Amino acid sequence: MLIVQKYGGTSVGTLERIDEVAKRVIKTKDAGNDVVVIVSAMSGVTNKLIEYAEYFDKNPSEREYDMLLSAGERVTSSLLAIALTAKGYPSVAFSGRQAGIKTDDFHTKSKIEVIDPVAIQNALKDGKIVVVAGFQGVNKNGDVTTLGRGGSDLSAVAIAGALKADLCEIYTDVDGVYTTDPRIEPKAKKLDKVSYDEMLELASLGAKVLLNRSVELAKKLNINLVTRSSFNEHEGTLITGENSMEGVIISGIALDRNQARVGIRDIEDKPGVAAKIFKKLSQKEINVDMIIQNVGKNGVANLSFTVPQNELDKAVSALNNLGENLNVESDSDIVKVSIVGIGMKSHSGIASTAFETLANNGINIQMISTSEIRISVIVDAKYGELAVRLFHDAYGLNA
Amino acid sequence: MLIVQKYGGTSVGTLERIDEVAKRVIKTKDAGNDVVVIVSAMSGVTNKLIEYAEYFDKNPSEREYDMLLSAGERVTSSLLAIALTAKGYPSVAFSGRQAGIKTDDFHTKSKIEVIDPVAIQNALKDGKIVVVAGFQGVNKNGDVTTLGRGGSDLSAVAIAGALKADLCEIYTDVDGVYTTDPRIEPKAKKLDKVSYDEMLELASLGAKVLLNRSVELAKKLNINLVTRSSFNEHEGTLITGENSMEGVIISGIALDRNQARVGIRDIEDKPGVAAKIFKKLSQKEINVDMIIQNVGKNGVANLSFTVPQNELDKAVSALNNLGENLNVESDSDIVKVSIVGIGMKSHSGIASTAFETLANNGINIQMISTSEIRISVIVDAKYGELAVRLFHDAYGLNA
Repeated sequence: MLIVQKYGGTSVGTLERIDEVAKRVIKTKDAGNDVVVIVSAMSGVTNKLIEYAEYFDKNPSEREYDMLLSAGERVTSSLLAIALTAKGYPSVAFSGRQAGIKTDDFHTKSKIEVIDPVAIQNALKDGKIVVVAGFQGVNKNGDVTTLGRGGSDLSAVAIAGALKADLCEIYTDVDGVYTTDPRIEPKAKKLDKVSYDEMLELASLGAKVLLNRSVELAKKLNINLVTRSSFNEHEGTLITGENSMEGVIISGIALDRNQARVGIRDIEDKPGVAAKIFKKLSQKEINVDMIIQNVGKNGVANLSFTVPQNELDKAVSALNNLGENLNVESDSDIVKVSIVGIGMKSHSGIASTAFETLANNGINIQMISTSEIRISVIVDAKYGELAVRLFHDAYGLNA
Repeated sequence: MLIVQKYGGTSVGTLERIDEVAKRVIKTKDAGNDVVVIVSAMSGVTNKLIEYAEYFDKNPSEREYDMLLSAGERVTSSLLAIALTAKGYPSVAFSGRQAGIKTDDFHTKSKIEVIDPVAIQNALKDGKIVVVAGFQGVNKNGDVTTLGRGGSDLSAVAIAGALKADLCEIYTDVDGVYTTDPRIEPKAKKLDKVSYDEMLELASLGAKVLLNRSVELAKKLNINLVTRSSFNEHEGTLITGENSMEGVIISGIALDRNQARVGIRDIEDKPGVAAKIFKKLSQKEINVDMIIQNVGKNGVANLSFTVPQNELDKAVSALNNLGENLNVESDSDIVKVSIVGIGMKSHSGIASTAFETLANNGINIQMISTSEIRISVIVDAKYGELAVRLFHDAYGLNA
């Protein structure tokens, strides 16, 4: 098999850890696989480099900022290749450029445009282990670019795609994807398998194992992703397109504390007001999530929607400056609890279980939204963790 | 003018120091010059990276070792460009590759083959200050190479040559080239000007301001070099081809403690024995310096020569294994004291002053060698510093 492995910052956080990673890579190679390894910077290094840059400028020139930050991953990749070669496994370190990763021009948050995998393929043909500096590429001018948050995961998935790898393993310091946050519900269990779409919902709702852009790319390229720990031998969680199980499965319960509710009461029920509101919010690049509108008796409506907490002030101020004399109120003391699983919409019982469970425990549902694979409810912040535990039990995840 | 400035490790050793360097660069720019800056790694960084590599392998794979070490200069160049841009002086950081520095394939000690200065020239045309990561280039495969000890100086001189710069300033933590080591003779004075050839003798004899390969390249490319301190505003020392002074000038006294003497007594005076000895030493890559042979009465000769102290054991063992049953003795308790200055050979008084000075002070000369611009004597190690001080006075350098 051709296996791509990515090791995050804590996995390569010390020289001893890099040595451990080398052993794991060798084990994979010894099992008869071709191996391409993508590495992050040693934990702490990127933050130190950011501090350095910000000593001179809070908004440092972006082209140079990218060149600066890319040094961290270059160091790790060189060291791992040296470690592997020292152990008798010829290895070569590639920068993003040398690995053929071509990006667009948007420094500090570039997108990968294309990967030319020839150099990697030639090194593999020579029997070498290839170690690639994650998080980085080059634009058409040959300037170093970086891929933004979660960039090394993205490097790994994109390289796996370009090489048509059989598997892309993402190593972190957690064992995989859990049915919910084990700090909230100790009975939370690691999932053996989850679909791309479920993972997307779980990731966007607070499971921090993988960022959405990596999962989206894996889905698009149809890459089998495994997320697992480099600190033990436990099997991780396979994230894949297929799902052999029949019917509905609840894969997890997610808690999102970064939510705030904006309410606008007594809006005149004339066409165009709601449109004007959301156009304004969109112009201000505010991410609106759930929206509820109730039309009342007297031709007036109540409108509610949620935004990320750190965009709340901007949203309220945008609405107050709209010139419509709106009656705006806001509440950041709420959370979103989500039940994620495939085939949900065709099973109305799923929703009724949620309502019943909360009602039986005196928890009021402020807002609801549903998708193909998710039901989310907005509740008072103080009930958030309780709701997670109740759902975890109600949907049989404690078993 | 077009000025190339190179700042060494201590000059960019902290963020505060990089800020000071930025101010100095800006002063040069504000005076109406185009400026290209070459930087070393922050002091300590390269050693730390070497330690990291040696944790895995005392002889790390060289290609990866070069990629690893090159990260240090990339960080400094990015930071300085960020600092300059933040102060309102648009600046661009280039890696060795981006600066067009093409080298041969000898990792860890590459030679610069050619510099394509177009990218630097275009950036200068745009009014930018160009900051280049020193010590590094790329080979024809696009792999990062490093230039070995003194590599950043070499980057600076080579770039100055490719750009036909008017001046190449090498900034360190010393004020320039001195008539001798001020720790030995407090009356030592900084030289305003010295020729390439004198500098070559002074450098090879222990004045550690500049390594010979940089001076040799400056001479070849006819680059006016200035070595000065980045920690004060003192004028430095100009190293140049021309020398407007007439006649003989003693520019300095150098002390080389890294010398050992090998003596071979009672060699049969038959043709070929000496040739055999030096051929063997050359095969073993031992650097033989001074050679003296005295032919005695009975057809036997005494041969003496000097080698660097750290090659003494290798030299003695090579001779003992030559199969000629040689009577080999060695002495590492010696030093070489050299008087350096132009036009020396045509002034026999220079040599006689040296002999007289030492004789008057009871110092025995074990060996002597002379060149166009240098007289060197080997004396007992214990007399080394005294000899330096005596010469410094005798040749009028105390004045």
